Amino acid sequence: VSEFSLIARHFARPLRHPANTPLGIGDDAALLQPSAGEQLVVTTDMLVEGTHFLADTDAKTLGWKTLAVNLSDLAAMGATPRWLLLAGALPDADPAWLSAFATGAHACAEAFEADLVGGDTTRGPRCFCVTAIGEVPAGQALRRSGGQPGDDLWVSGQPGRAALGLAHVRGQITLSNADARACADALHQPQPRVALGIALRSIAHAAIDVSDGLIADLGHILRQSGLAAEVGAYLLPSPAADVPLEKARTAVLAGGDDYELLFSAPPAAREAIALIGHRLALPLTRFGALVPGPGGQCTVRDVHGAPLPLERVGYDHFPDA
Amino acid sequence: VSEFSLIARHFARPLRHPANTPLGIGDDAALLQPSAGEQLVVTTDMLVEGTHFLADTDAKTLGWKTLAVNLSDLAAMGATPRWLLLAGALPDADPAWLSAFATGAHACAEAFEADLVGGDTTRGPRCFCVTAIGEVPAGQALRRSGGQPGDDLWVSGQPGRAALGLAHVRGQITLSNADARACADALHQPQPRVALGIALRSIAHAAIDVSDGLIADLGHILRQSGLAAEVGAYLLPSPAADVPLEKARTAVLAGGDDYELLFSAPPAAREAIALIGHRLALPLTRFGALVPGPGGQCTVRDVHGAPLPLERVGYDHFPDA
Repeated sequence: VSEFSLIARHFARPLRHPANTPLGIGDDAALLQPSAGEQLVVTTDMLVEGTHFLADTDAKTLGWKTLAVNLSDLAAMGATPRWLLLAGALPDADPAWLSAFATGAHACAEAFEADLVGGDTTRGPRCFCVTAIGEVPAGQALRRSGGQPGDDLWVSGQPGRAALGLAHVRGQITLSNADARACADALHQPQPRVALGIALRSIAHAAIDVSDGLIADLGHILRQSGLAAEVGAYLLPSPAADVPLEKARTAVLAGGDDYELLFSAPPAAREAIALIGHRLALPLTRFGALVPGPGGQCTVRDVHGAPLPLERVGYDHFPDA
Repeated sequence: VSEFSLIARHFARPLRHPANTPLGIGDDAALLQPSAGEQLVVTTDMLVEGTHFLADTDAKTLGWKTLAVNLSDLAAMGATPRWLLLAGALPDADPAWLSAFATGAHACAEAFEADLVGGDTTRGPRCFCVTAIGEVPAGQALRRSGGQPGDDLWVSGQPGRAALGLAHVRGQITLSNADARACADALHQPQPRVALGIALRSIAHAAIDVSDGLIADLGHILRQSGLAAEVGAYLLPSPAADVPLEKARTAVLAGGDDYELLFSAPPAAREAIALIGHRLALPLTRFGALVPGPGGQCTVRDVHGAPLPLERVGYDHFPDA
């Protein structure tokens, strides 16, 4: 089976927005029509079997997640998703597996109104590489470096659920049926916070998506904004009921793979942010503040005001080592 | 060593064209400023160890080629390269290997004036995925589907050299020192025909880059243009001296990895094309014509006018099987 046919058979679909894409899959490259006044937002991510997913991962789930983690990067910039390119190495051309993977990938692309416009398939150890391209009005992109002293720190959704979902399937904890389902959804079908990112364009000063852990990813905002942070661990929502405090806290602060948005915004924006959360039916939790201080320093306190040891909350002390 | 630092340490360089890239490596995504009146040309390609390159391939050479094959796709569309994103899986973070790879990659990016604006590194079996983004004035992109009956067929450079270079290092043929060097260069450091693609914007009707073999890639133009072709194998330049005719012919017609441009243009453009070849000091050879007939049918003749059996010249009869 040739490379061309795998792409054509499983991944080519009618374009949702043909005016944006004069030429899609099937030539040497795709032709895209950028919108006037917009800047492009581009990100690429590679997912490797054994590192990012297991060999027995459900193919449809994996198709969704492979695109979702890239759309999450666009969301963190406040961008509107437009185009996706998907390259994949496959050990074999199993049509059932590919069809399921494509079904999941297309469900995600359609949910966020992006068109798959290019790709490449080749033989090799299973791995996928997605490039996502979005648009944002010139000057309105949310950057990691835009944090201001005095900004509130916010996070969407219920971070920690993906980590608890993984711990549950590994038998390390036991969740109720409802919590197990919610945590499995967070793990397998993360929801890129695209609508939130767009709503925050004129409101947030800095943003990042939480892929490596809440505190670890906060560190990027702190270093790039040249600020310190005060965080109240007790302010964050519990990801599930009846989980031992220590395990729940680690999941919230250090668990990766949640793809929630972490952002900073001035206190004057609190009402606007509450309204956005209400409109999107998405919990938005204020859990700390940016403060002057050594860039990158993060103090996480428990409900009594006592600082928690950072090595236990997923903070990477040597990010550039 | 964290993912961020590998990208920052080895791949972040000052931007050549800062006005085109408001934000480069280091945030959730890069911000690109498209040019007014231009369309975007986007392509992605994955190179896997064992499939596209061997484990002992020189890292610097591999860095060049990984970007070059993507820039070749832009060239085939007539695009000006602007931006590159590079994702890679690595079995280990060997700094010497990475440094050499980055040196080769940057040499290629700089040679074609593109900026590396994003990336991702992860642990896994060695593989690379590049996304290349270029620009072309709206409506001027060269497509595979644009061929017209009566068009001449042209190819740049000396296709077959990469295949002979590989046969030489494998001991299957013996080339003179000069030919061995030229063929090794074609194999290891392919030159994307960017300047040619740009020059052909207003001249060629259809174009493709030769990565799978001259006749196999011609097949894409034929099927997408709905035309047949007459090809004179004897019209194509010899890739090296003193190679048995059969081996040389197979290399020219079926050898992949040359990354020359194959294009169709009306006979009225012959003088303009000759001038382009002269200006670029690049051989441009007219080797056949597009003719009415069953879309995809290709007749390759020897100097006596006798058709060559297509299964011996790399033509894929069942490209969509």
